[in-house]
Amino acid sequence: MTSRYPVSQLRDFVTTVLERCDVPPDDAATTADRMLDADLRGMSGHGVLRLPGYAKRLRSGGYSLRPDVRVIRETPVSALVDGDDGLGQVVMTQVAEIAIDKAIASGLAWVGVRRSNHAGAGGVYASMPLERDLIGLYFAIGNANHMPPWGGLDMLLSTNPVAVAIPAGEEPPLVLDMATTQVSYGRVKVAADRDETMPEGWMVDRQGQPLTDPKRSAEGFLVPIGGYKGYGLNLVIGALAGLLNGAALGSSVVDFNADFTTPTNTGQAMLVVRPDLFQPVEEFKAAMDHHIRELKASTPMPDHPPIRVPGDQTPDRIADLREHGVPLAAATVHRLADLATELDVTDHPFAP
Amino acid sequence: MTSRYPVSQLRDFVTTVLERCDVPPDDAATTADRMLDADLRGMSGHGVLRLPGYAKRLRSGGYSLRPDVRVIRETPVSALVDGDDGLGQVVMTQVAEIAIDKAIASGLAWVGVRRSNHAGAGGVYASMPLERDLIGLYFAIGNANHMPPWGGLDMLLSTNPVAVAIPAGEEPPLVLDMATTQVSYGRVKVAADRDETMPEGWMVDRQGQPLTDPKRSAEGFLVPIGGYKGYGLNLVIGALAGLLNGAALGSSVVDFNADFTTPTNTGQAMLVVRPDLFQPVEEFKAAMDHHIRELKASTPMPDHPPIRVPGDQTPDRIADLREHGVPLAAATVHRLADLATELDVTDHPFAP
Repeated sequence: MTSRYPVSQLRDFVTTVLERCDVPPDDAATTADRMLDADLRGMSGHGVLRLPGYAKRLRSGGYSLRPDVRVIRETPVSALVDGDDGLGQVVMTQVAEIAIDKAIASGLAWVGVRRSNHAGAGGVYASMPLERDLIGLYFAIGNANHMPPWGGLDMLLSTNPVAVAIPAGEEPPLVLDMATTQVSYGRVKVAADRDETMPEGWMVDRQGQPLTDPKRSAEGFLVPIGGYKGYGLNLVIGALAGLLNGAALGSSVVDFNADFTTPTNTGQAMLVVRPDLFQPVEEFKAAMDHHIRELKASTPMPDHPPIRVPGDQTPDRIADLREHGVPLAAATVHRLADLATELDVTDHPFAP
Repeated sequence: MTSRYPVSQLRDFVTTVLERCDVPPDDAATTADRMLDADLRGMSGHGVLRLPGYAKRLRSGGYSLRPDVRVIRETPVSALVDGDDGLGQVVMTQVAEIAIDKAIASGLAWVGVRRSNHAGAGGVYASMPLERDLIGLYFAIGNANHMPPWGGLDMLLSTNPVAVAIPAGEEPPLVLDMATTQVSYGRVKVAADRDETMPEGWMVDRQGQPLTDPKRSAEGFLVPIGGYKGYGLNLVIGALAGLLNGAALGSSVVDFNADFTTPTNTGQAMLVVRPDLFQPVEEFKAAMDHHIRELKASTPMPDHPPIRVPGDQTPDRIADLREHGVPLAAATVHRLADLATELDVTDHPFAP
């Protein structure tokens, strides 16, 4: 069961909770904006749902409350940012802004960050350059290891996501936001709650055999997309978003679901590209429209819905959620109400 | 059955065949080098095996024999190259060299190309920056559409590969070279030849059901890695390597296995990154070594070989093939012998 809550109400609630956790008002507002951005884009697993976890970490001393986010290495086309253990949304917003400014000036920019934290939905940051008709790419190290190397048993890898946003003209931009695992643990937990069987390919057990009972998930591992291919892609993202920035990777990754105090040294990176390096931006956007329309007008399989392109439903979803509110599951509402009580926030919409 | 042939002998043979097809000696030598590079790296599907196809296209007028490969748009961090329908290996070698030079000067460089052709193994080009301690990324549009959009029936997408090479210190560099489909058509054909059943996940039929009989492959399609995720990744590569460069994509892709005369307008792109934008290169390489060793020392599944990292066997393979020769399957040898006869090349190692 879900209920819907107005965006402004949720944003105010998140801001209030963060301020109650001693986050400065500006940083609280930025974090709330990025979390609502995730909800509006349909990436609810990285939206308001995350607030109790962030609050727990804030109150446990796992974050720097007054982070000195700063550039520690810089060229006209690059920067290495030290996130100083700040909230990931605050740090990554600055990273994206630096990358956008540099790309506008130089055509191309790569900005990496160390000592950041979980920043929510990669698609939110990859999409920030779109307003300026820029292409955005985002790479990140996940904040818990859920996967062994291919053929192995030791959990040394996270879901290391990649997000890419490419402007179009009249069509919605192409926005891809994906982990390099077949599914997230979240989907496994949902299947367990619903007494469902998982399809083969989501998880394997310690013998490498398909694991289809989600209640046995602790006996197995997530599977990378395409098997060894997704494993390779995961390693590449690990090197580019983690090692290149001097961030945590492998056994040095902190499980932020279990440890709320150790700095995570999370690594992320943004690459921003100005399309007019290669052709006038209006021509490029028209070519994107043409391609997207060709795909969407193509024949679906029998009894299959029309062809989709990643991101094509986002503008409609944003409009719908802005008008009718953001849906939150009953369990999430319950946790937010508990959080309000703990922090003595009395003016909130989650009363039972 | 395979036989082994010395590298120098194969290189000479390829060069001779290309010259016999009116390719200038320098371009013939460059193409032969890149084809042998593919064989040495174990990507034999993009090596000497491809020579008959290239020769057929050369003799059919599908290539420009004296291409004017030139930069038509340029900044210190980027270039758009017009390949003028030249041999893909010749064009992409220049693209990689331009990207490397610009990255050395500016820290970061993105070079795209239009009007190129099939260039063989992406890992060959992605690896060229390694000699200069640079990171290389390669994106390309495949030269035949083998896949519909996710949930669709119309073959509008190719295998659009990505290749990435990241330098390490004492360990071999991390080199990933993958199509965004679960397998290539080549592997399907091999399964058919061997009367094998394909695992679920390689192909689906026109109802979206698993297709496991490789002899029925014409009734179905290749499947993207991770389902809709690989589809999204495929679209992103299509936009970055194709549309951004004004190259062919979707219905404008020419099937180079069926059409040997129409210019393919193939798009490719190279991104080269100087690791010292972010940290001293020796520190980065040491971090790569540490990570690779941690992965390789981790516990394999029961009865599973030791953990591997993409590219870790490449130096040993290159050394072995240089010493003992490049293995070629009997069918390949037969086709090369036929080609030699057609072109009146009498001094060759493929006599029956």
